Amino acid sequence: MNLILLEAGELGAGGHATLSGRRAVHLIDVLHVAAGHEIRVGVVGGPRGIAVVESIDAATVTLQCTFEVEVPPWPKVDLLLAVPRPKVMRRLWAQVAALGVGQIILTNAEKVERNYFDTHILAPETYRPLLIEGLQQARDTRLPGVSVHRQFKPLVEDHLDALVEEGLRVVADPSSTSSVSDVVRESRKERILLAVGPEGGWNAFELRLLSAHGFQSVGMGPRTLRTDTACVALLALAHDAIRSG
Amino acid sequence: MNLILLEAGELGAGGHATLSGRRAVHLIDVLHVAAGHEIRVGVVGGPRGIAVVESIDAATVTLQCTFEVEVPPWPKVDLLLAVPRPKVMRRLWAQVAALGVGQIILTNAEKVERNYFDTHILAPETYRPLLIEGLQQARDTRLPGVSVHRQFKPLVEDHLDALVEEGLRVVADPSSTSSVSDVVRESRKERILLAVGPEGGWNAFELRLLSAHGFQSVGMGPRTLRTDTACVALLALAHDAIRSG
Repeated sequence: MNLILLEAGELGAGGHATLSGRRAVHLIDVLHVAAGHEIRVGVVGGPRGIAVVESIDAATVTLQCTFEVEVPPWPKVDLLLAVPRPKVMRRLWAQVAALGVGQIILTNAEKVERNYFDTHILAPETYRPLLIEGLQQARDTRLPGVSVHRQFKPLVEDHLDALVEEGLRVVADPSSTSSVSDVVRESRKERILLAVGPEGGWNAFELRLLSAHGFQSVGMGPRTLRTDTACVALLALAHDAIRSG
Repeated sequence: MNLILLEAGELGAGGHATLSGRRAVHLIDVLHVAAGHEIRVGVVGGPRGIAVVESIDAATVTLQCTFEVEVPPWPKVDLLLAVPRPKVMRRLWAQVAALGVGQIILTNAEKVERNYFDTHILAPETYRPLLIEGLQQARDTRLPGVSVHRQFKPLVEDHLDALVEEGLRVVADPSSTSSVSDVVRESRKERILLAVGPEGGWNAFELRLLSAHGFQSVGMGPRTLRTDTACVALLALAHDAIRSG
């Protein structure tokens, strides 16, 4: 944890907070904090700041926090992801939050198995702590928005425009010879919605629908990557393209 | 598995091979192959090709293979990695092989814990199957070279030049404002050796030594990433920079 995230409701009057559980254990056993130490903190959806450790007992740490005025900006990349296997999705939550995404839009596709939707890995009580873990790693406070869509066509046709701000739309397609950076440079857009398909790929209908709704194809060379590797790679390329665009 | 890799010793006269174990189970239970089906195959360190399924019984699959003349080229990126926690290293092997690396050079650093070297995750019998898994995912046959170095200074001063071909050398440094793509574009080099430090970063001595041996600093923006996420992201950026350089 490079930053300890607090929920707004944990903050008392004057910036006091008392932590227990995992964060307290981390502060005591990993960071070896003592009274008077300063640590980086943040409020979920709010500003970052510095906390002075006031006191420690066996299982709780009391902090006095001072926050910056500004809230970190939203990440400039959104992710449209065909729901992968639960094991892969579990690995992805924290990494995606650490890399920085505004919206995580999970969708069905022909090659997504139906039972993937019924797993607890798509339940907020499972993924929220994993997203928080990723934010704490990356020193961010902006919890990605998450929505789960069991129907691909209505999502793309009716809901997508409301879910993400206007920006460049790209879809990862192994057959494409355009790179993310090329497409970003040409577009001069400052936000990207990145679509990553299922392990077996989008079908022809899905690719046509995405294309009809403004998604340009991008590739990463001839190597076929696992969904989680591809997601991390493409998010890194998208952020890099926006930074240097 | 997007390609089934065979060891050279498994190939009999005329391109016959009989598979058992994990690959046979995958062919039978996941790909549902039948006699006459064609599948993609490759030889570790050798060419790719096509195999016709000759026969199947409960636990073995017999193939008749025909190989291409050319062997796939070596990946143009090498990785110098401070040994991460065993759990992280376990996750990395297959992903690194899938993304494509020529040499994986594992090293000590001040912030690497000594006991990381004594784990079975650095033993060839553990990592070789994981590398093969990554190659099968990416349809490659080039098994990365792996070397493990318990002393950082002799590695950088005396051994590195012999381990990797001449090329651009970059070290991931969160404080750097240069991107991989900028540095690659300016260098006009066609190979990259990418150095990724321990979770707590390289110390000042290590960074100076790397700099003295030609490593330029590159960053990925303000977010601090877990080692495995950073490795995947940087390897993707390095490959992309070389492809579009």
